[in-house]
Amino acid sequence: MDALCWQGWAMRRRTDRLSVEDFALRPVESVEAGDGQALIAIRAIALDPYLARAMKSWAGEHPGWADGTVHGRVIGEVLHSRSAALAVGDHVLAIARWQAFDVIDAAQAEIVDPAIGNPRLALGVLGRSGITAWVGLHLAAPSAGETLVVSAASGPVGSVVGQLAKRRGLRVVGTAGGPEKCAYVGDALGFDACLDHREPDLAERLAGAAPDGIDILFENVGAPSLDAALPAMNRHGRIQLCGLASHYNDERPIELRHFRQLLYRAVTLRGFITAEHRDLFAPALAELRQGLDEGWLHHRETIVDGLENAPAAYLDMLQGQGIGKRLIRP
Amino acid sequence: MDALCWQGWAMRRRTDRLSVEDFALRPVESVEAGDGQALIAIRAIALDPYLARAMKSWAGEHPGWADGTVHGRVIGEVLHSRSAALAVGDHVLAIARWQAFDVIDAAQAEIVDPAIGNPRLALGVLGRSGITAWVGLHLAAPSAGETLVVSAASGPVGSVVGQLAKRRGLRVVGTAGGPEKCAYVGDALGFDACLDHREPDLAERLAGAAPDGIDILFENVGAPSLDAALPAMNRHGRIQLCGLASHYNDERPIELRHFRQLLYRAVTLRGFITAEHRDLFAPALAELRQGLDEGWLHHRETIVDGLENAPAAYLDMLQGQGIGKRLIRP
Repeated sequence: MDALCWQGWAMRRRTDRLSVEDFALRPVESVEAGDGQALIAIRAIALDPYLARAMKSWAGEHPGWADGTVHGRVIGEVLHSRSAALAVGDHVLAIARWQAFDVIDAAQAEIVDPAIGNPRLALGVLGRSGITAWVGLHLAAPSAGETLVVSAASGPVGSVVGQLAKRRGLRVVGTAGGPEKCAYVGDALGFDACLDHREPDLAERLAGAAPDGIDILFENVGAPSLDAALPAMNRHGRIQLCGLASHYNDERPIELRHFRQLLYRAVTLRGFITAEHRDLFAPALAELRQGLDEGWLHHRETIVDGLENAPAAYLDMLQGQGIGKRLIRP
Repeated sequence: MDALCWQGWAMRRRTDRLSVEDFALRPVESVEAGDGQALIAIRAIALDPYLARAMKSWAGEHPGWADGTVHGRVIGEVLHSRSAALAVGDHVLAIARWQAFDVIDAAQAEIVDPAIGNPRLALGVLGRSGITAWVGLHLAAPSAGETLVVSAASGPVGSVVGQLAKRRGLRVVGTAGGPEKCAYVGDALGFDACLDHREPDLAERLAGAAPDGIDILFENVGAPSLDAALPAMNRHGRIQLCGLASHYNDERPIELRHFRQLLYRAVTLRGFITAEHRDLFAPALAELRQGLDEGWLHHRETIVDGLENAPAAYLDMLQGQGIGKRLIRP
């Protein structure tokens, strides 16, 4: 483990399909904090699906990735600070390299409120995942009595979408992979139904679980769940396109048997990027914290220990393994 | 020809893919007008792409099609009337059977304003096609300086979309099949560019013709043009999904290589149904008539004579043959 303290993950090559062989450990160049910087010990690295795109095509467009160095959201503990904004012992949310330690710019870091207890929540239910759920649901303009379907329902976004939608008076149906996840979604999270997408005839089962049709589809996965939901969409239904997790690790065309229904049913499909809705972050976080405080908002973390396991854990996450927020503890 | 006066087109069977063998001439049951009805001589039958769906799956959902009888929009001349609302000699817009004569309910018919001159315009530029163009463009909320791409640009919808968008100060690029259509779109209609989708590298040519990116894609065709446009869409671009003409005559899945861009670029794709926007018909028709009166709105008709040619002409239209509004003169 010791050697890992001075190494970090980088991409070996550009690829259309990630495998563990595409990742390499490289020596860390510097752990010396300059003016306005801080040295942090990384306590948790978020395994975020959207990173796959940067991992595959890291040329140019992702600053910092210029030589393939993997960057992602982390929670770090400040060990040494050369900025008045950060004190030793602060927990910060930052973009950092996939390492055990890193040096970050204080201006780019955000101190995690100690009141939340577990600072890792700032990567999950009280971080980008929870905020994405809140913002996407808000943009879909849900109304009490409507039916919402959400894919990857046991994930850190889907689980929050469904719980918020229940509170807003919607009928909520989730889809997830396997009986363990579905039991969690139905029992612990209180969705009206959760369907195992690994079982056959998902479209028929979705139509059955949404007898009044689907008003909102909150899509995190891609073609399999989209195609199953489209024939049950109501006229003027809304599809909130939040993620395409099943398509991040390849560049194959996306095939939809029921794409025509977007036209026939006058459906609106809206791609959205959470970072573009910063004005909604404060109300989102307020309700999410309230949900945790009052005990009606449930969440889980799936933590893998050891920086050396990060690439495999990342690829497992893309395959749908784990419940709730997937994290590495370096 | 005479025998055709007492026959009409019907579907022989349900099918996933139309061919002329799926159509059959059948005797007309009655040409006797009852109370509130009128006998009309059908002067023009609109070859509307959306009919393909009814032609393939005419069971149940399409009243009047119960035994496979083909119905569509027509212009008829009243020969005999048993309604105070219609007089002999009136030209009416109605849904009628694909026949030389039919009996219609006066309450369902709309008298064509004689001031428009050619009553067939009420099927095309001053009818559902022109209105669809106006409504769809309106819903896309175009702004001067934006770039709009429209597929099937020489068709009765696309040609009007582009001309209206030019008047609203947009850069307008059309796609169409073959040099004759493209010459018409570029020269007669005044689009900034028209690209032949039969030539290779449409995506690269589209990106070149839209150097500031595409803000609005007005989609009439389907995967080939959608996929070529998606990589050039601007962030927050809008896709107005008006038709899927290239997919009406089969039930195969729709494959999109660049579907992911809807998410990455936060694009909104909106299916719409013109009939649901009746409040916009009056302002639409007002501007379309003004365009014809003032001479800045151009349109064409492609007319095939002979009721016996209707099925073949219909299938040719689906294949993209003809410029402007495609019509049968029985």
